[in-house]
Amino acid sequence: MIQLGAAYYPELWDEKEIEQDIERCRAYGLRVLRIGEFAWGRMEPTEGHFDLDWLARIVDRLHAAGLSVILCTPTCTPPRRLLNKYPEMRQMSPAGVREAVSSRCHTCKTSPLMRQKNREVTEHLARRFGSHPAVVGWQIDNELYIYREGCYCPLCRAAFRSYLKAQYGTVAELNRRWGMARWSLDYASFDEVEPPLPDEWRHPSLRTVWRRFQEAQICDYAREQADILHRYTKAPVGTDMMPMNTLSYYDMNRAMDVVMFNHYDTAARLPLTTFYYDFARATLDRPFWVTETQVGWNGSEFAENGYRPAGNCRINSWLPIAHGAEKNLYWLFRTPQNGHELAHGALISTAGRPYRVSEEVQRTASELDSCTDFLEHSRVRSQIAIHYSSVAQNNIYSAPMLKDFHYTQVLNECFYAPLRHCNVDIIDTPHALDGYRVVFSPFLTTIDEDLQARMEQWVRAGGTWIVGPMSGYMTADTSKFSDSPYPFPERLAGVYVKYQRPIANDVWHAAWENGDQLGISLCYDALEPTDSRPLAFYRGDEFDGYAVITERKVGDGRVILLGSVPDAAGIRQLAGLPPIAAASENIDLIERSGDRAGILATEVENRTGTLVLPTRYRDLLTGDIKSGDITLAPYEVLVLERM
Amino acid sequence: MIQLGAAYYPELWDEKEIEQDIERCRAYGLRVLRIGEFAWGRMEPTEGHFDLDWLARIVDRLHAAGLSVILCTPTCTPPRRLLNKYPEMRQMSPAGVREAVSSRCHTCKTSPLMRQKNREVTEHLARRFGSHPAVVGWQIDNELYIYREGCYCPLCRAAFRSYLKAQYGTVAELNRRWGMARWSLDYASFDEVEPPLPDEWRHPSLRTVWRRFQEAQICDYAREQADILHRYTKAPVGTDMMPMNTLSYYDMNRAMDVVMFNHYDTAARLPLTTFYYDFARATLDRPFWVTETQVGWNGSEFAENGYRPAGNCRINSWLPIAHGAEKNLYWLFRTPQNGHELAHGALISTAGRPYRVSEEVQRTASELDSCTDFLEHSRVRSQIAIHYSSVAQNNIYSAPMLKDFHYTQVLNECFYAPLRHCNVDIIDTPHALDGYRVVFSPFLTTIDEDLQARMEQWVRAGGTWIVGPMSGYMTADTSKFSDSPYPFPERLAGVYVKYQRPIANDVWHAAWENGDQLGISLCYDALEPTDSRPLAFYRGDEFDGYAVITERKVGDGRVILLGSVPDAAGIRQLAGLPPIAAASENIDLIERSGDRAGILATEVENRTGTLVLPTRYRDLLTGDIKSGDITLAPYEVLVLERM
Amino acid sequence: MIQLGAAYYPELWDEKEIEQDIERCRAYGLRVLRIGEFAWGRMEPTEGHFDLDWLARIVDRLHAAGLSVILCTPTCTPPRRLLNKYPEMRQMSPAGVREAVSSRCHTCKTSPLMRQKNREVTEHLARRFGSHPAVVGWQIDNELYIYREGCYCPLCRAAFRSYLKAQYGTVAELNRRWGMARWSLDYASFDEVEPPLPDEWRHPSLRTVWRRFQEAQICDYAREQADILHRYTKAPVGTDMMPMNTLSYYDMNRAMDVVMFNHYDTAARLPLTTFYYDFARATLDRPFWVTETQVGWNGSEFAENGYRPAGNCRINSWLPIAHGAEKNLYWLFRTPQNGHELAHGALISTAGRPYRVSEEVQRTASELDSCTDFLEHSRVRSQIAIHYSSVAQNNIYSAPMLKDFHYTQVLNECFYAPLRHCNVDIIDTPHALDGYRVVFSPFLTTIDEDLQARMEQWVRAGGTWIVGPMSGYMTADTSKFSDSPYPFPERLAGVYVKYQRPIANDVWHAAWENGDQLGISLCYDALEPTDSRPLAFYRGDEFDGYAVITERKVGDGRVILLGSVPDAAGIRQLAGLPPIAAASENIDLIERSGDRAGILATEVENRTGTLVLPTRYRDLLTGDIKSGDITLAPYEVLVLERM
Repeated sequence: MIQLGAAYYPELWDEKEIEQDIERCRAYGLRVLRIGEFAWGRMEPTEGHFDLDWLARIVDRLHAAGLSVILCTPTCTPPRRLLNKYPEMRQMSPAGVREAVSSRCHTCKTSPLMRQKNREVTEHLARRFGSHPAVVGWQIDNELYIYREGCYCPLCRAAFRSYLKAQYGTVAELNRRWGMARWSLDYASFDEVEPPLPDEWRHPSLRTVWRRFQEAQICDYAREQADILHRYTKAPVGTDMMPMNTLSYYDMNRAMDVVMFNHYDTAARLPLTTFYYDFARATLDRPFWVTETQVGWNGSEFAENGYRPAGNCRINSWLPIAHGAEKNLYWLFRTPQNGHELAHGALISTAGRPYRVSEEVQRTASELDSCTDFLEHSRVRSQIAIHYSSVAQNNIYSAPMLKDFHYTQVLNECFYAPLRHCNVDIIDTPHALDGYRVVFSPFLTTIDEDLQARMEQWVRAGGTWIVGPMSGYMTADTSKFSDSPYPFPERLAGVYVKYQRPIANDVWHAAWENGDQLGISLCYDALEPTDSRPLAFYRGDEFDGYAVITERKVGDGRVILLGSVPDAAGIRQLAGLPPIAAASENIDLIERSGDRAGILATEVENRTGTLVLPTRYRDLLTGDIKSGDITLAPYEVLVLERM
Repeated sequence: MIQLGAAYYPELWDEKEIEQDIERCRAYGLRVLRIGEFAWGRMEPTEGHFDLDWLARIVDRLHAAGLSVILCTPTCTPPRRLLNKYPEMRQMSPAGVREAVSSRCHTCKTSPLMRQKNREVTEHLARRFGSHPAVVGWQIDNELYIYREGCYCPLCRAAFRSYLKAQYGTVAELNRRWGMARWSLDYASFDEVEPPLPDEWRHPSLRTVWRRFQEAQICDYAREQADILHRYTKAPVGTDMMPMNTLSYYDMNRAMDVVMFNHYDTAARLPLTTFYYDFARATLDRPFWVTETQVGWNGSEFAENGYRPAGNCRINSWLPIAHGAEKNLYWLFRTPQNGHELAHGALISTAGRPYRVSEEVQRTASELDSCTDFLEHSRVRSQIAIHYSSVAQNNIYSAPMLKDFHYTQVLNECFYAPLRHCNVDIIDTPHALDGYRVVFSPFLTTIDEDLQARMEQWVRAGGTWIVGPMSGYMTADTSKFSDSPYPFPERLAGVYVKYQRPIANDVWHAAWENGDQLGISLCYDALEPTDSRPLAFYRGDEFDGYAVITERKVGDGRVILLGSVPDAAGIRQLAGLPPIAAASENIDLIERSGDRAGILATEVENRTGTLVLPTRYRDLLTGDIKSGDITLAPYEVLVLERM
Repeated sequence: MIQLGAAYYPELWDEKEIEQDIERCRAYGLRVLRIGEFAWGRMEPTEGHFDLDWLARIVDRLHAAGLSVILCTPTCTPPRRLLNKYPEMRQMSPAGVREAVSSRCHTCKTSPLMRQKNREVTEHLARRFGSHPAVVGWQIDNELYIYREGCYCPLCRAAFRSYLKAQYGTVAELNRRWGMARWSLDYASFDEVEPPLPDEWRHPSLRTVWRRFQEAQICDYAREQADILHRYTKAPVGTDMMPMNTLSYYDMNRAMDVVMFNHYDTAARLPLTTFYYDFARATLDRPFWVTETQVGWNGSEFAENGYRPAGNCRINSWLPIAHGAEKNLYWLFRTPQNGHELAHGALISTAGRPYRVSEEVQRTASELDSCTDFLEHSRVRSQIAIHYSSVAQNNIYSAPMLKDFHYTQVLNECFYAPLRHCNVDIIDTPHALDGYRVVFSPFLTTIDEDLQARMEQWVRAGGTWIVGPMSGYMTADTSKFSDSPYPFPERLAGVYVKYQRPIANDVWHAAWENGDQLGISLCYDALEPTDSRPLAFYRGDEFDGYAVITERKVGDGRVILLGSVPDAAGIRQLAGLPPIAAASENIDLIERSGDRAGILATEVENRTGTLVLPTRYRDLLTGDIKSGDITLAPYEVLVLERM
């Protein structure tokens, strides 16, 4: 069901206000409310005694008003009373101090007591509401990821050591794979291993593996709740995640039914948000939900996140739907009267009044109604994929190798953005490769043996693998190789890496074989083709004449090795697939296919754009027939069904 | 008595140097020295045994030399020995660590022992010097305000809980008024309330009330000393305060006889310093003292605070006098040989030599002599007041609502500065409204019931109240309202606030009714007049056609509601009162009236200025008769008595 | 022996890799490897049992391959096991926390146990390798200086108090000399003295003396090892020091035979690096060793330190040799596979491959071969010296007096750089003055009685002393004088310092006696010649007409007092000595004399330069005869022997 919705906190408002809020909700076209997220205090007013009657009244009331409910487990905000009584439920800082009971998301994910308390409240909720007709989905906890540097409590330290033992077997093996001999830092036993302190000189391997351990705890913590919910409900279960793939979306969503995604991007970043939509859609290969996005502005103690021009909220609501979401929920419905996030924008102000921007939500809701059938009977399918790896994210966090290097940003801006006129899947390495014709793997630090085998097989079967720069150059433990800068790509691509240089911006230049200029950036490897042919060369300066891009035929496919980051035109040329349609740069295009088929074209930069339609389409928002040269107004969206 | 003076630390110098310093003091025209401030160590050389003989010799010697004395209680620097013996005298950090004994002002304001030791030393001083003819004033402690985040010792925590109990009665009421249900943070009892930690996600109400509590302790701490001093002396008692109204000037000075004010503004900020003079003068409605300002430059470990051009020191000395001060004291007379603040400017260098700028002090002293009678027989009276609220300051500290919002700076630069050619009082909300024709109340976050009644009564009696933007929108506990963005102003101004937008700079425009352009900034409310008339409108963009300023007649007066911050011309137009005289922007004007009357005109931007005198005046510095068009040289001051 | 070399860590590589690395080493022209630095863990695998056989095999193997060895004591990286067993070996933070066992250089320099363990491993090494023919030098520890703020453990605190007692005798004397009365901070006994905490308001004297104490501990710690080594070896002993003279190079090197110097300057800073070469050469008046510099780039977690253009590495290798080094070693030979500093540049990559820049090392090695005899039979001798004082460094660290004042940077850029075409020694105050014709002493905060006597004697014997600005104005304890801003220079220069002003940049101007303009900066004293003649005057503004530079004949010599920092032309004019040759600004010139004689001319800014040779020279790199006008290509070096 394509729906707009919002987060609502009925525990903060009296009955009269709730009644009015329900009316406002309907008036503005919202169909689903996400509730319960932080209400553990009301659900378990004294330890072990649960009161869900108040919540049942709300759910029934919403149901009666024709509204759906996404119900949340409130496990990110245990009641103060529990946290004070059982300090072990709270995360411990690197300095050994328990988190103050002052906000949220401060729990230890290892603590058996925390886990037990979670299971209790989750089971009570699931039993009571698992088959309620209003409940269309379940959300576990809230924005799970590593807070600060993780939990340093004794339970986590002990679990970390067990984790290491399971991974490495012997401490000698760990010493070897982490290179601990270097500064006489060899561990004598696993008991000597301590988590990394934030202010110490950071050891990349220790740092990487500590994060991986913490993330494993988080996934297991969420899976426990999912297992309980699945016993009581048929509605999809998920957990809302922030736009980062540090904690692997794939690991986390293995236990889930739907990918839930939160983001708070600025107006200026609007064109870049689709990167995550294409990732969220691909993760479980099914429609995802945007569980949180803003109506007007962010604000904890003050309003921020820049100015959102007229029309931007509407497009921010349309884009995820275009790219495969089936729900878009705002945070939040109504700003509270006091406490944290007092300055946050919402659909309805504290004083119960809508904002001007709320009218854009209203309009979007009504537009969606006219397209629901089309959207629900068409899917997004891509021939191009870009690897976006949680393991690489983690490696780069521990050892970025390049200065000011932001993995996600580079993937988004340098590799994904140039392909805006094609359907693209953003996938992590576990994703199956079937159906893709082209796969980009830039800065994919680690290519394990399984992936090596799968990539080679897929290439031999006809795929074009565009790999590098800086791919396959370290283990998942953030350790480099002594025989080649990146053994697998170097071998498969048939090259010898002659020189490397990680600092050279504004100095190096390159050109294609035919002499056309090629922009390059970020890092620079000078390649000597051994069993491959050069596609582009360095021009001038130290690497003059060495190849920067090479191509090798492997089976029915090709391996293209990148020695640097090509410019946008270079990315498009290497991808080699035709666009959905000719369009100006500011038009986001998505092709939908299935029972019904067509194109969604969205202007994302608040200026006029152009589009050339290959055949005749019906614009589902206006009913007009369109073909040929089209002009889009700033922030216009076209839902075009092929006729 | 109009006097120049300085801080002096005789405990640092031997007798020979002191004799020379007295001569230097007289030579440079200083008439009063402020002493004793940090000398507790010399006053109580062993615990419980006081030695004030050395100080008496100094005071007698100064008296004999014709110099007055402001005597300070040394309570901000207890002797190391006491602080080591009684750790409870020292402030405790949020992490539970007592302040190191390493500088000053590090005491706990709650500790009964600290209070007792304070009383002892104060009483000894008061008894010995209370009626000494040289002593013209008493200063309590030094620059009292919340250091760092306040004191987190067990005594303060306990007192905080008692304070909350007294304020809220029950913990349920506190939970309700602070909205603690939101993240399951309800307190089960007052014992669970902890002060806010600096690195935690800040709860606005907790943060606000914690500050209010700490400030109440500080006021009580100072009041105790004032009570003792008042038993022994007839000289005025005060405490020197920094330029911020976080700790309320009104609360603090209720127990005092004279407002003492310290400031260290740069040359560039000179035109803005008068804001605080107009505030200090209004607080007790009597002449105030500048107890600290710099001669040349600031400097703890290095000289700083920018370059002070020739003439600036003189004007920095004249401006407070013009605006109603009767003393201006420099910090400090002579730089010490070692220790903290080794690089600070002074009248006399460590080596006993004056600076070039010291000659400006000398000149000012001699000029003041020729105007003393005029200044002492005239007062500053204002028809315009601007509300500058300690409660708002505190609310905004906890929840600024607008990004990069500095309350004092906005009041000073956007509301006060445009009125430079009128006498203006800067008042806090307890101040009586009688005598004012126009009152501005911008960003006055909280308008309690008492103030509501007083404002309405004053308006009905003929006052013009220019209120907003963002006034009356929260309680003193930093909690917003559920029925209106700002119930009282909205009602009294006869408007309905249609939309709000806290982010829009460089996007929004406005115009007066007649079409003239009006600059607006910072925040944007779209107003619908219900029982009022619009004065100005938004032009273009989302709020096009909505009112931004409205006016309503109420009784014999008017309420003007601001939906945004008007530009300088707008402020002057709304104030509607004629200037003291026509003058260029760089001329600060003050009108003095009483037994003698006239105008002080001061050039404050180091460039040529102009002034048109409405009648004939005598310039008391030169004896010249002036009228009509006048040109002022850079940094010129004219003391013009009406003829 | 003029040699290139590198740091190598054989403990990280297996035998096969080591064999290959030795071949690579020889192929790239390296002659010496620095080993053992961090290998304590391998040297003492269990407490008290030493295994040096593996190391002996390496040393023998290197010897067999014709390579020399600099052997390091590994005392900056005790094995984890020891550090865990004996926490006292680890430095304690100001908050009382022991350093984590996570990196290196974290030891307490006071701990008797740490000292004992150091002596043991040093003695084992010395006994085994003291007379090994491959070992051409010994390095003690690594980059010894005050880490963070120093060690705050109980042992250090107790030793600090003993140190103070030895320095001041009585606590009353300490109170007096530190001015502790000021804020009632008098100590009752030495037991009350605590080291300064980083976040407290810093007391200059406490801060200075605490550093001086810590540095005394470090020197003593290194001296202990030197004493042991000297019992077993005839090879020179040193300790590699970073480019800062906080910990006095003179104090430290008193126990050493050779100054070892590490630096990691960027390409842009290349012209400034020679300052430290001229300092390192002068310290022991003998050739020094560059023990660490980079080949390509720095990198802990990411590559940094900017782009190094082609040719820069070669010049960075040549410059120290030109200025008197006899070894230049890179850090490092080969980047490790994992752990800290994973992204660091090297001669050979982790994968065992050279970089393009490595070829510059290869070229330099071969060039040096053709000049070795010339370089070994000529020395650098200077007629000009600039005082660069560790005491001043420390004073300025505690009380910079001027904002953003960087002592070393000002000396380097404002005083040293203008004299690039002369031989210059950078000396600390203990250095003998014989042989110098001109000595500059800018910002020499402290001039103790011994130096006063030596300077006056040297001036009377004919020297030209250019002193100031801001010299001799405080004691070594960071305490100023009460009778003169700087008693000794004021007296010896025959002036009266009328005014001082530490802030005035872009405001003040000056001119020479003949009216020519003179640029001045940073600080401004207005001088009245009493028994001297003015050389330059302030022009305009407040100090108009006062002298800014004065000159007085004293005996056969002269004292020139600076009231400000003169511009580059001014520095050259005051120095008054002819350049080695006329050359453009971008040419670094060094004159070598002795058995063989000539000039080294190096282009240091990567652009074309010019040089006028006074006579005929043979270029030892090309064999060409050169004379008259010469053009140097970017980054060209000429080794010119006089014919």
